[in-house]
Formats: sequence, C-alpha cells, structure tokens
Amino acid sequence: MDEFARIRHWTEHRQSAALLASQGVVTGIGDDAAVVALPPDEQSPAEWLLAVDTMVETVHFNDATMAEEDVGWKALAANVSDIAAMGGTPRHALVSVSAPKAWGPERVRRLYDGLYACAGHYGVAVVGGDTTSSPLHLVVAVTVTGTVAAGKAIRRAGARPGDAVFVTGAAGMAAAGLHFLLAAGSAAAGGGDSPRPVPPAAAEAAGTAALVQAHRRPAPSVRAAALLAARGTVTSLNDVSDGLASEAWEIAEASGVKLALRESRLPRSGSLTAYAHRAGVDPLDWILYGGEDYALLGTIAAEDADAAKAELEAAGLPMYLIGEAEQGPAGVELVRDYGERGPGSRRGRFSSPRREPLAKRGYNHFGG
Amino acid sequence: MDEFARIRHWTEHRQSAALLASQGVVTGIGDDAAVVALPPDEQSPAEWLLAVDTMVETVHFNDATMAEEDVGWKALAANVSDIAAMGGTPRHALVSVSAPKAWGPERVRRLYDGLYACAGHYGVAVVGGDTTSSPLHLVVAVTVTGTVAAGKAIRRAGARPGDAVFVTGAAGMAAAGLHFLLAAGSAAAGGGDSPRPVPPAAAEAAGTAALVQAHRRPAPSVRAAALLAARGTVTSLNDVSDGLASEAWEIAEASGVKLALRESRLPRSGSLTAYAHRAGVDPLDWILYGGEDYALLGTIAAEDADAAKAELEAAGLPMYLIGEAEQGPAGVELVRDYGERGPGSRRGRFSSPRREPLAKRGYNHFGG
Repeated sequence: MDEFARIRHWTEHRQSAALLASQGVVTGIGDDAAVVALPPDEQSPAEWLLAVDTMVETVHFNDATMAEEDVGWKALAANVSDIAAMGGTPRHALVSVSAPKAWGPERVRRLYDGLYACAGHYGVAVVGGDTTSSPLHLVVAVTVTGTVAAGKAIRRAGARPGDAVFVTGAAGMAAAGLHFLLAAGSAAAGGGDSPRPVPPAAAEAAGTAALVQAHRRPAPSVRAAALLAARGTVTSLNDVSDGLASEAWEIAEASGVKLALRESRLPRSGSLTAYAHRAGVDPLDWILYGGEDYALLGTIAAEDADAAKAELEAAGLPMYLIGEAEQGPAGVELVRDYGERGPGSRRGRFSSPRREPLAKRGYNHFGG
Repeated sequence: MDEFARIRHWTEHRQSAALLASQGVVTGIGDDAAVVALPPDEQSPAEWLLAVDTMVETVHFNDATMAEEDVGWKALAANVSDIAAMGGTPRHALVSVSAPKAWGPERVRRLYDGLYACAGHYGVAVVGGDTTSSPLHLVVAVTVTGTVAAGKAIRRAGARPGDAVFVTGAAGMAAAGLHFLLAAGSAAAGGGDSPRPVPPAAAEAAGTAALVQAHRRPAPSVRAAALLAARGTVTSLNDVSDGLASEAWEIAEASGVKLALRESRLPRSGSLTAYAHRAGVDPLDWILYGGEDYALLGTIAAEDADAAKAELEAAGLPMYLIGEAEQGPAGVELVRDYGERGPGSRRGRFSSPRREPLAKRGYNHFGG
C-alpha cells in the first residue's frame, strides 16, 4: 500500500454523512485542508475552542499497558475532555500519526478503530490527518475544535471566595489502573512472554477492571460540562488530567483564591481503595496526584451548588461538593477532617479538622 | 524548569496583543483550550479551514540538514501553505512538540524561535500547544486554522477541460537543496565532526543558497493565493508539497481531466540547473518529483489566465502558465516540446512535440 492507499484504509467510510453534516463538514479528509462551517442556526455568535494533546509510545503507553485501540480512543478523549473543561461542545478532530514501520498498517488501523469509536461516541467529525513514518516509537497528536456560546467559555480564573468546589467523578482511578498494568506487565515479561496488553480478564480477576478502564478508555465529562455550563453559575473549570492537586492549584493561582479541599468529601472508589491496600500505596496519593482522569474540577456559586448537584444526579451523573474557595493568598489546603486515623476510624470522624498546605505535585506517573 | 516553566520559556511574550486581537484570540495558551472568534465584521458567512502537518527527526530533517529554527519555521510554513492552497487566510496555530531529553529546553526554544518568526511573518496567532517528552527523536505536529468566504474554498476537483494550468513558482528547489545538504553533511561527518547544520556560508560558496533556503525556510504562497482566490476564476488548487507530478495527478483524478504540462514552460531556476549538472542529476527529476515546494499548482479559466498572470506579476509574484486541462480520461502528460535535446538545443526547439504519460512518483526524497 502506498501512502494514499494506507490513509484510505485507515479513514475511509468511517463516519456517516449525517454525523459529518451535523458538524458542518463541507470538505473532510482528502484535500489540503478541511472546510467546516457551523449550521447557520448555530453560527453566530459562537466562539471556537481549540486544543491539542499528544501521546508518545514509552512515555504515555507501552505494549503492556494499552492495546492500539485504547491508544486511539484515549488520544481523542484527552482532547474532548479539554473542550468539556471549557464548557464547550466538541466538533472536529485532526489526527497526526507518526508510526514506525514495524507497527505496520494493521496496528495503525486498530489505533484508528479506537479513535473512531471515541469520535462516534462523542459525535466528533474526524476531518483531517497527517501520517508520517517514525524511526522507533509511535507518536499520535490530536487537535480538536469545539464551540461555545460567545462569552460563555469557562476558564480557570473565575473562582471567587465563597464558591463551592466540586468534582464530577472519582480521581486517581487512571493512576491506580496504570500501576496495576505496569506491575502485571512486568510479571508477564518476567515469565518470558513478549509484552502484550494485559488482558481485561486479568484486571477483572484482580478486581481492577474499573481502574484499568479509567486508564485505557477514559470517559470525558461532556454531558456534565454541558449541564454545568448552561446553569451560568460555574466560575472556573478544569479537567483533572494533571491530577486533582495540580488542577486545584491552577484554578487557585489563576483566580487568586485559596481552595480548601475536605479529605472526607473526596470521592473514593472501592476498587481503588482495595487495590491501594494490596499495593501498599496510600490511596490519597493517587486521588490527589494521579493524573489522566477526565472528571471535571471547578467552582460554582455556593447558592447554586446543591441545585446543580441535584440536576446532574437526576441525569445519572455524579457531582461531589468537596470544599470551598476562600480569600487568598492563592493556594490549596487539604482539610483533614478525618483526623489522623483515616476514614475507617470512628473516633477520627470526631477529632477536630486540621489543615495542611497541599503540594502541587507528588506521585509522578510514568515519568512523562 | 518544570513543565509549566518550560512552556512559559518557550511561548510567553512572543506575540503582540495587536496580532492576537486581529485574529480574534479571546484566550490563548494557558487554559484547557484556546478560545477564538473572528472579529464581528468578518464572522459571517466564513468557513473554517483546518490542516495538520508533522515533521519527524531523521525522516524530514536531521542535524546536518536543518537548524532548530528551520524546523520550527518549516513545521508551521507547511500548514500555512495548506491553507493558501485552499484559497484561504491562515489564522491560528497549535503546536505539539515531543522532544527527547537530550534536546534540552534551549534547543526546543530555538525551534519555537523559528516557529514564531514564521507566525509573525504570516500573521498567524499561536494559541495552543502540548509538549511531551520523546524517547529518542523530536516530533513536531502543527495544526492551523484559516478562513475563507463561505463557498469560496478552492478544492482539487474543479478543473475543466480548456482551463489553463499554472504554477506560482519554480518546483524542485527544496529537493535540490536537500540533496546538497545531505551530501555536504556526509562529507562533514566523514571528516570526524559531529553533525551540525551545514552553514549558510557553505551553501553560498557552492551557489546553492537559494536551494538550501527553499528546503529550510519555504515561503508559502499566501499573497498569491489571496489574489487568485479573489478573481473567482481559479477552478482547482494544490500546493506542490508532494511534487509537481503527484499534485498534478491529484487534480487530474479529482477533477476527471487530463493535464498536459509543457516541459518548455516549467520554470527552471538557474541554481537548480547548475547544481543538477554538477551532481549528475536530471533537473527534471527534481522539478517533477521533488516535493516540499510551496508554490501553488492549479487551473484557471483560460480566458482569465493572462489577466491573472499580469495581476500577480504587478504584485511582484511570479505565475507561469505551464499547460492545459483536456478531456479525460484522468491523467497527466508531459509535452516534450524541446524534443530529445533538452532546453539547451536550438534545433530541439523546432522538433515536433512528443507527449509522454507522466508517472505520479519518481524520485523519493529522504525516504520519508
């Protein structure tokens, strides 16, 4: 196959005309550039959102941690999450794949399978791409567009003292899943096998299926973002891609406020707690510093917090009110309202809360 | 420097508020996604153009062929050229850089220096980016946006029998420049030096400065594209990034026409001809199959061809009428109206033209 045949093999007949039309695609893959326009009823006064995210073999994934389909899914999902974190609607994607010859066209095709699965799930039109060879490692960079009503993009800088701090899902899951996959991969390699993706059945057996899923097939909070943005009371928003602590610091510094996060209110997944116990890791390390989670972290006017939570929960979406924004100086504090004994201790619940400054970074996944 | 400090080092204070405002940048680098809107007077009914292009170390450049600044310039220029090739105006860029640790922040900074120089030259606002580490080789993927009046994007598929075929500059220059750089780089490496970019003075001394410049600092035909698009008579347009023959084939196949290219009318640079003679290469190989040139190749209504040429030349821009579109079947033919003897032969000029089918691909630069 020459280059053009390969591109057709990877991208042709992947998306319906209806999906492409719904995103205003005039010309898709195949010319020098894609041509897109919003349907006239949506055109004005929308603003456009643009984001790019990159995944590098050996830095973000390897043969043991992810199958090709997972890489494709996640490369797009990370970008979809960035659009959600601005309160927007994802629309178009462009894909740059640099693939070593050793990968061959079929492995790249499976990467595209996963990418198109994610695109279909979120209604994103894949409108362009570039494929090149790479000497040794696969690199995939995806750019997405999205739109938001003019003036309605939700930035990091709007948090005000008195706002409630929320998160739309459990953090730390992806980091725990990666920890499991790296350990399981090493064990398999030690057994002489060439590295293959740790099979889902192994995660199932180990009780880590949800963690592995969070790492391999993250689910951006697009619906939650749309519901929250429509309320008009969300004052800052990030996704948790760099870890809860790091993202909270970004909001605090951009907004000039202090965020107080209550340890007792941080959502904890049962499988994370169980696996952390077995792995000898403090689950809070993953929850605060894990990264690659695509829950949304933000602040909302305190008087609307309970109503927003009720609306999301009625839609089947979780929302946790985990703290408050306070007068600066800018910073993040963890309120250890369990006391010293942790969540399992009855006595701990009644000891007086203690505040600790929260470091921006701790655990550093994968060294990437 | 941590990741955030590095990104600031590379991207902060690079572009004026006036440039960013002129491209409707509401929020640039630093949040989850950039927010852009066209100024209200331009907003409707524009269509958006989207393109992505990737450069990989060892595939598209190496230490001998390009300095870091050249890599940054060219990574953006290739995309700007794709927007020009649709008849559009380039507006925004997003940059994904995967850099090996060995590159260090200063080499990456120089890459950004070149990229921002190109952005400034073409008025492109750099609004987003992602930087990751890479195990061994640098990969840079750039995505650009552009706009075009609704319905006015110029595709490949519109050429009609009777149209004139034109090109806006000499092809083959970049391929000849690369040939010189690879030969000079090998010679230097053979001398025991570690590979460094072949200095401009060496190209100057060898009479290949224009060829090296074409490879390292290509100049997309944005002004020519704007003038041509405004005439409304251009029926198809490509840039010559994959070589004149290949791009002519793309237009012919997309439009269902035959393109007859006249050998005698193909623009020939004096330095290309001179260097080809010394290197023992048929200059026509580079002209037809060279690639990485950013002149525009297209078709235009025959009755407007001379007026378009006059308008471009009045603006200091070359335009060469190199052939005609004919009834299909789709294909490309080279009209050898020099006869067998080549352009240097007086007798050759008067021998009767001979037509040859032109292969899509011949010379394959760099193996990439």
